[in-house]
Amino acid sequence: MIAGDLERLIQLLSRLPGLGPRSARRAVLHLMKKREALMLPLAEAMAKAADSIIACSTCGNLDTQDPCGVCRDSRRDPKLLCVVEEVADLWALERSGAFKGGYHVLGGTLSAIDGRGPEQLNMGRLLDRITGAREVEGSAVEEVILALSATVDGQTTAHYISERLADTGVKISRLAHGVPVGGELDYLDDGTLTAALRARRPA
Amino acid sequence: MIAGDLERLIQLLSRLPGLGPRSARRAVLHLMKKREALMLPLAEAMAKAADSIIACSTCGNLDTQDPCGVCRDSRRDPKLLCVVEEVADLWALERSGAFKGGYHVLGGTLSAIDGRGPEQLNMGRLLDRITGAREVEGSAVEEVILALSATVDGQTTAHYISERLADTGVKISRLAHGVPVGGELDYLDDGTLTAALRARRPA
Repeated sequence: MIAGDLERLIQLLSRLPGLGPRSARRAVLHLMKKREALMLPLAEAMAKAADSIIACSTCGNLDTQDPCGVCRDSRRDPKLLCVVEEVADLWALERSGAFKGGYHVLGGTLSAIDGRGPEQLNMGRLLDRITGAREVEGSAVEEVILALSATVDGQTTAHYISERLADTGVKISRLAHGVPVGGELDYLDDGTLTAALRARRPA
Repeated sequence: MIAGDLERLIQLLSRLPGLGPRSARRAVLHLMKKREALMLPLAEAMAKAADSIIACSTCGNLDTQDPCGVCRDSRRDPKLLCVVEEVADLWALERSGAFKGGYHVLGGTLSAIDGRGPEQLNMGRLLDRITGAREVEGSAVEEVILALSATVDGQTTAHYISERLADTGVKISRLAHGVPVGGELDYLDDGTLTAALRARRPA
């Protein structure tokens, strides 16, 4: 007995990650109560973003312009290039404020199970950026930071990129493993503890 | 460095119940990947529902027509009226398929803490429906089922409605308390177990 228009909205909303049919129904009823304040602005913002947001043809970041804000920003260090899996990872690094170089979004990892090879990723463009840029004086990438997940697929991808870049002479680094800041030792897995112990530093 | 259009979409999405900033960001990146298949249809469905869906002036249900599909359905028993807090509860009862009477959606419960009195709820209309209908031969409500939450506010509201309807001669009932079907005794709270024991029936 749910009206067709509502049923369709619930069905579409429930396809978002983190929302099932139950939470989609709850969300729709919340929207119906906040029609002017939330529902119409949300519909409009969604249509607008679908229209205006594009992937940067250089790095794969999402922005209203191509090249994106990060690639256009002349204050950022062109000698540092941070390779991430997804735009979400780029956002996470930007929130930390700890990195002021350029990015390259792969759009995933290599995966034997899911059948993703280098050609499904933004990989050729990465090699072009590094080898190509090295031919232009002054804008050469000197260090590639592989900020990939500490999963089998993430590390396979990191290894693949390292191999491909071996001849270019560019410095390749990875994120450090260790105890998360604020993390309790008791709750950490053995792998993290082992890595933190091995990479211990003088206090 | 997130583009304004994306930032706004994330901010609006994070106001949905069950979504925080983190899951809203994830949802937006998912939408950007499924622009044609999900993002545009969702924006459209949301705008359409915001425009087409109205609250039934009789019972408070949401539908494209007023009176709503339930109120218009002549196969339903007009002698039974089920009072619920929210449209979500009406949907839950409809999914069970166990009730074939009419509904009345209060739009919440009485709440001393949140300052919700009878005038903030769809209460006057409920009394009108019961007393008014009893004057019209043949369409009289004979039983009001109070399907309200087993919370303090829900039970206060049930008590208030019972008092207000005391003079009308209408039969008033409540949902049974007991062990949920499929529920394990071990995980049940004491109140439910006590109620289930008291209301035990011959096997």
